[in-house]
Amino acid sequence: MARKSSLSGFTELLPAERVIENHILEVLAKTFELHGFANIETRAVEPVEQLLRKGEIDKEIYVISRIHEEASEAAAKSRQLALHFDLTVPFARYVVENAGYLAFPFRRYQIQKVWRGERPQDGRSREFTQADIDVVGDGTLPFVYDVELAVVMAEALSKLPIGDFKLRINNRKLTEGFYTGLGLTDTAAVLREIDKLEKIGADAVRENLIEHAGASAEQADKALALAQIRSEDTSFVDEVRALGVSGDQLEEGLSELSAVIAAVNEQAPGRGVADLSIARGLDYYTGTVYETVLVGHEDLGSICSGGRYDALATKGKKNYPGVGLSIGVTRLVSRLLGQELVSASRPVPSVVYITLATDEDWPAAQKIAQQLRSRGIACEVAASAEKFGKQIRYADRRSIPYVWFTHSDGTHEVKDLRSGEQSPADALTWCPAEEDLRPFISLAENS
Amino acid sequence: MARKSSLSGFTELLPAERVIENHILEVLAKTFELHGFANIETRAVEPVEQLLRKGEIDKEIYVISRIHEEASEAAAKSRQLALHFDLTVPFARYVVENAGYLAFPFRRYQIQKVWRGERPQDGRSREFTQADIDVVGDGTLPFVYDVELAVVMAEALSKLPIGDFKLRINNRKLTEGFYTGLGLTDTAAVLREIDKLEKIGADAVRENLIEHAGASAEQADKALALAQIRSEDTSFVDEVRALGVSGDQLEEGLSELSAVIAAVNEQAPGRGVADLSIARGLDYYTGTVYETVLVGHEDLGSICSGGRYDALATKGKKNYPGVGLSIGVTRLVSRLLGQELVSASRPVPSVVYITLATDEDWPAAQKIAQQLRSRGIACEVAASAEKFGKQIRYADRRSIPYVWFTHSDGTHEVKDLRSGEQSPADALTWCPAEEDLRPFISLAENS
Repeated sequence: MARKSSLSGFTELLPAERVIENHILEVLAKTFELHGFANIETRAVEPVEQLLRKGEIDKEIYVISRIHEEASEAAAKSRQLALHFDLTVPFARYVVENAGYLAFPFRRYQIQKVWRGERPQDGRSREFTQADIDVVGDGTLPFVYDVELAVVMAEALSKLPIGDFKLRINNRKLTEGFYTGLGLTDTAAVLREIDKLEKIGADAVRENLIEHAGASAEQADKALALAQIRSEDTSFVDEVRALGVSGDQLEEGLSELSAVIAAVNEQAPGRGVADLSIARGLDYYTGTVYETVLVGHEDLGSICSGGRYDALATKGKKNYPGVGLSIGVTRLVSRLLGQELVSASRPVPSVVYITLATDEDWPAAQKIAQQLRSRGIACEVAASAEKFGKQIRYADRRSIPYVWFTHSDGTHEVKDLRSGEQSPADALTWCPAEEDLRPFISLAENS
Repeated sequence: MARKSSLSGFTELLPAERVIENHILEVLAKTFELHGFANIETRAVEPVEQLLRKGEIDKEIYVISRIHEEASEAAAKSRQLALHFDLTVPFARYVVENAGYLAFPFRRYQIQKVWRGERPQDGRSREFTQADIDVVGDGTLPFVYDVELAVVMAEALSKLPIGDFKLRINNRKLTEGFYTGLGLTDTAAVLREIDKLEKIGADAVRENLIEHAGASAEQADKALALAQIRSEDTSFVDEVRALGVSGDQLEEGLSELSAVIAAVNEQAPGRGVADLSIARGLDYYTGTVYETVLVGHEDLGSICSGGRYDALATKGKKNYPGVGLSIGVTRLVSRLLGQELVSASRPVPSVVYITLATDEDWPAAQKIAQQLRSRGIACEVAASAEKFGKQIRYADRRSIPYVWFTHSDGTHEVKDLRSGEQSPADALTWCPAEEDLRPFISLAENS
């Protein structure tokens, strides 16, 4: 990652770095599957008007066109295509299109590249990988999935080599109910201002609330007081009540957020925080909203976000409410690599490098390799019988832990390049140390 | 696959179909890793001029532009970007850019989407997945890798649920040496005509050779005779010699092709065929060339192709010769699904569905789920305590094999939905049948 990419915003990993990314993707996929999420992929492109309808990133998408298409023809096309900028919008379309073939509630995970034409900076690429889980219902979706998804994600993240993290959780019903109870009817405007809290500070937000959201000084103070409530348990409920606002929607929000926080902290102690400042930019959230920060890396922004949406996917009278979370895998991996917080034991899968005494031994060496591979031991055979020192250096440069020798009397030996220890071996029975079977990931001491 | 995709050429799979594709991708990745290939990914986009320099598919690529970019600005850009159309060209660039960080010979596999603006038809999509292996050397690359790559690919393909296949292998040195020895100096023109053999037949190719490649009637006959040679062993050598042409390059080609065919058929009996009609369209091949047909599905075209290239990746005086093969995963999967040649045992990872007697049991049910998951058993918990019949139907519709019941006295039972058998179970010890742990793939009887 110290290397500069040849195209700004489009990062490419070296093999050892990819080992780390693959480890993370595997842990995520395995955890999601243990929780019953099925995998799907959606196409990389969507009609432009579909992408522009949701979210607010119209300036940032990439349209595609065939190279020999006329400019006028492209402009006239009613269904111009663009690369997707997230996995939620394509997933909503997929659900609507394939509803007749899916069993609801439908739980899926999806790990794919997405593209945004943003100005590249630390934590923001133009091409990046997201890993999403969502559960979508047909018509209705029980609230308990809001709890379950937070727990699944806390479990998945806790298995990654990323140190401590906090799921910061809020609920739109709680905040909107509070604003309404306070007499602020343009709740979207209030949310928009509160969302700027971390960026511009309380004083500026207070002014904006009065100026742009129709708040009195007292209403602005209370809205700000709400946004400053944080708790690792359900004590936030009393703090909200102390502000003297009430209403049904607020009560529902308090009860939902309590349930999520209690469950997360029972199953992943210390990982869940009720944070009543969390707004999430996107309009389609209607209940629980989630963000996640890496402790000590708050500057990176959220590495995993999402929420409950009651009407993202609709078709005629049909409605498919859902709840989901999305991990910014590239953002996470870039930080781990950029600050050298983790490392891989080797850049190649090979456990054993099989040397050649003469070029004619190549077929016999392939047989040995085949016997090792049939027992799950990855190996490579030398391409030519260079000096043994050179063959050993080949393995050493790749951190392949073991080198295999076949002697002229037909016996074999294997050498551990780390200890220097060399001992007799049989291709039908020899096994490496268990931890050497695959490259492993280590945390740096400073992480 | 009976469904029509909503965007022509962009196929999306249902969960059960994706289980099959994922099975194939996993088998490939695992096999490539057992052979010491490291995984990398390259970005989806390349500068247009880089893509146009190689291959001959300029009409078929997709350029990208930010949606608010002016048309004039886009046209003026010296480094306009386009989606890659294969993984070989991006890989060559990656090798040149990162040569200082790589250990040569560098062996990598790469599994990614690629895009072509072709007219969609059976076996041709606009978005599809390729799975590539290549070995690239710094300056030189021993010939033995041409043998090894054919063997690796034969092994990988033989582990897939695709029935019989044939690797049809030829060698450019052999064909070019033969043409030169015959007195035909414009070997590229000859190859171009021979490449049309399957499409237009021998008579038309004969005419073209005379008209466009400067061949006499006798030369055309001999070139055609060469292209009709096929053998599953090295007997093709004698057949070529019987045509009475000789030369150093021809001899080298004969010897290389013999070595590849002999090795493939020793390690994967019956999978390798010397087929002297194989030309491969791309100009950059310089020795061995490979194609692969599914037996009984020859109409599908090649499902795995590649070859030796001595100068695809160069930088100044530096040259990186390589040899590689690329599987058209989407083409393969489309055929398997389209003709229902394979099926998945279930569309979800879940082995067990944990029912609820009351809504309040949800946290306790999650604990049971956690115990099962900690032993690698994927499971889901019901979201609410609906009637048991409804909960069982939920599992049944997804082909989840087992349903879990917790009785009011604290005991548990598990029911196999296929046999109907119900027996006492303990979350700390209960195990499903080994083959139920993950969805499995079955071959249809007619395949």
